[in-house]
Amino acid sequence: MKALQERIRQQGEVLSASVLKVDSFINHQVDPVLAMEIGQAFAEHFQGQGITKVLTVEASGIHFAMAAALALKVPFVYAKKKKAVTQNEEVYAAPVYSFTRQETYQISVSKRYLDGNDRILIVDDFLATGAALLGLKEIISNAGAHLVGVGAVIEKSFQEGRRKLEEAGVYVHSLARIQSMSPEEIVFIDEAAAPKETASV
Amino acid sequence: MKALQERIRQQGEVLSASVLKVDSFINHQVDPVLAMEIGQAFAEHFQGQGITKVLTVEASGIHFAMAAALALKVPFVYAKKKKAVTQNEEVYAAPVYSFTRQETYQISVSKRYLDGNDRILIVDDFLATGAALLGLKEIISNAGAHLVGVGAVIEKSFQEGRRKLEEAGVYVHSLARIQSMSPEEIVFIDEAAAPKETASV
Repeated sequence: MKALQERIRQQGEVLSASVLKVDSFINHQVDPVLAMEIGQAFAEHFQGQGITKVLTVEASGIHFAMAAALALKVPFVYAKKKKAVTQNEEVYAAPVYSFTRQETYQISVSKRYLDGNDRILIVDDFLATGAALLGLKEIISNAGAHLVGVGAVIEKSFQEGRRKLEEAGVYVHSLARIQSMSPEEIVFIDEAAAPKETASV
Repeated sequence: MKALQERIRQQGEVLSASVLKVDSFINHQVDPVLAMEIGQAFAEHFQGQGITKVLTVEASGIHFAMAAALALKVPFVYAKKKKAVTQNEEVYAAPVYSFTRQETYQISVSKRYLDGNDRILIVDDFLATGAALLGLKEIISNAGAHLVGVGAVIEKSFQEGRRKLEEAGVYVHSLARIQSMSPEEIVFIDEAAAPKETASV
């Protein structure tokens, strides 16, 4: 998505080899027009695949899930985060280890809102280690639902998230794939030049 | 907003005298079409007041802030929640006491995204005790910005939030005002019959 790449080049700040700050338009202050375009891009990419729900995790995936769900004309669900890992028969839950905070938290979705008939598109702002997305995948499996794919707004392709998801059989589509970055330069993987992705079934 | 009241009557579950569960369409699973209509209703109510930004707090206000900001053609900002109350010179912060969790957490907004030229519309899913909204008001004051008003999706009018906000000089507009509720019946305050609200300056 060229407009997104441009915006990241203009407004993103590379704070270290692995930290990209985009909180002026993606995940603190948000440009709602760009968020809608992002949702539209996900919807176009995944259209015709019978998606019944968009799933994300609070908080910074919510506006993109909203935009994608609106374009796909389906509801969206955001998993809740809790610090403590507790069992509860009313929810599907999965532990997620946060490398940033060096702690394990729990994400959960009410059993009411996922079932065996659902075909799910996961949407999130970042794909880096893939930990939260693998947690969502676990929740979808527990519900007996089908995971159609993951849509990430920004992928740090130099981290292991995409590889881990693909090894787990998950199809991944990211709108801006960062091959490498430094305060001087952000290099994107050119989608046209990249090996063609094939959808997992 | 009649469509919202109908939806609350159909899908809301009154769990106790003060707990209304609306997580099938408002704050866990979300109907994005309804969320857009809610944003549109806020935008129509507050149009012409020179709003420069919509402000909410993560997580369940985000989709409504997004919808309102899109309709008003301005960015939105979501305050971040932290458990620990820490000082940081890069953010405006305020403590918020959660009656549900019986603990104080901190909400914060980067100083980059609020300043003295901003005219702010606060949007949130619920107005109950008003604690989070008063925290957002404090942040806006600290930034020297102007608070135009608060837009709440659902107001529990039998709790003290509206009174507290109005006593603090804040104009409040809620789309569904619940006068009383029980598992048998939810009674809304009829906007047409309610005393006319006047905007604070």
